[in-house]
Amino acid sequence: MLFFTQCFGAVLDLIHLRFQHYKAKRVFSAAGQLVCVVNPTHSLKYAPTLCAAVQTSTEQGILPPCHHHDAVHDPQLVPCMCPLFSCPWEGHLEVVVSHLRQTHHINILQGAEIVFLATDMHLPAPTDWIIMHSCLGHQFLLVLRKQEKYEGHPQFFATMMLIGTPTQADNFTYRLELNRNQRRLKWEATPRSVLECVDSVISDGDCLVLNTSLAQLFSDNGSLAIGIAITTSKVHNSEAEI
Amino acid sequence: MLFFTQCFGAVLDLIHLRFQHYKAKRVFSAAGQLVCVVNPTHSLKYAPTLCAAVQTSTEQGILPPCHHHDAVHDPQLVPCMCPLFSCPWEGHLEVVVSHLRQTHHINILQGAEIVFLATDMHLPAPTDWIIMHSCLGHQFLLVLRKQEKYEGHPQFFATMMLIGTPTQADNFTYRLELNRNQRRLKWEATPRSVLECVDSVISDGDCLVLNTSLAQLFSDNGSLAIGIAITTSKVHNSEAEI
Repeated sequence: MLFFTQCFGAVLDLIHLRFQHYKAKRVFSAAGQLVCVVNPTHSLKYAPTLCAAVQTSTEQGILPPCHHHDAVHDPQLVPCMCPLFSCPWEGHLEVVVSHLRQTHHINILQGAEIVFLATDMHLPAPTDWIIMHSCLGHQFLLVLRKQEKYEGHPQFFATMMLIGTPTQADNFTYRLELNRNQRRLKWEATPRSVLECVDSVISDGDCLVLNTSLAQLFSDNGSLAIGIAITTSKVHNSEAEI
Repeated sequence: MLFFTQCFGAVLDLIHLRFQHYKAKRVFSAAGQLVCVVNPTHSLKYAPTLCAAVQTSTEQGILPPCHHHDAVHDPQLVPCMCPLFSCPWEGHLEVVVSHLRQTHHINILQGAEIVFLATDMHLPAPTDWIIMHSCLGHQFLLVLRKQEKYEGHPQFFATMMLIGTPTQADNFTYRLELNRNQRRLKWEATPRSVLECVDSVISDGDCLVLNTSLAQLFSDNGSLAIGIAITTSKVHNSEAEI
């Protein structure tokens, strides 16, 4: 009986997923873009670990040095920068992608322009939505985070980071775009390197920031569709053109 | 002696204004847009009047009914919607523009695309920067407000309102664009009518919202340049294209 109940649950989940895909495709069908449904993960960073300590000091407005592990001596080794978990892993930049896929089951998508469809926006903070995006010969990490910078006022922060060095990141521009209910919000910037700290990017607010009411205006039935595009950064030469 | 000191002060002001114009023109010269330097006005709404009461209840998160004057009986009369002052004036929509120009000395600019250069962004909240914009046969009011929704955390809110009815407002789309330091933020929406309340638009956050650090990234020496464009609202038909 339990087996049948579980099977039925799984079928329902599939139908729900299919429905969300259909909705997203309907919205973005004109552009023929790849839609990726991204489910939320409740942030585990508040667990009593070193990462939790980093998180707490960020909340107090003090920018922590971005060390997850004080014991890292080899400068070529980086800690796991997956912002979801307080993960003890560390390794070279080249193996970060496989670690994130295998250990944290983060999806990777191909294509210059994709649509990131974050589900269940109503879930309480702290919550993260994460995918990897493979494009122009590099891998990027898109992080959408719901966080309460001011108690009782959750906000959404979205940023894109290159799984590479800061010098490599300077060659790209990413664009996040929301478009619904006769409103359009577009954010363009140079991605940060994952060697920098996603927590500090978000606590600085140097990313796409949405308050709850704006997020609701851009959402459709609890899901937020973010159009993502990555280009090589020619746009910076024409900074004067508004 | 006092006369000469004042003259010298006025000349210094003119040089400062000329310098800011020059800076703005340098930044936006490529587009050949009209640049308007807008000086701040410290909001007087906190004076103990009805407007102050409205403001206070907004801060507490309660959306007030948008009545500045309970005594308005003629539905064709509107109160002064200049968000700077608790002004007892009321009149028909047709004479709002002349009231704002003559009584509140708010500038009016012509042109489909202009640059709004708000000076002295460092001034403490509450502060407003306001101009009128004449375009496509209508007048619009652009309001940039620095306000502390959360104590100790001032934010900037920018919105555009049509000096006309909500039905007329539905025919337009306005765009606000910031572009500096390898970042670009673009907000597009239908303008609200000035018959609605600018306070509620801002307290809802249904506008362009900037935290202080992002405002600093987009500022040049304490001045924030916002590119403004108004079009008739064809864009809403193509909501699907991201």
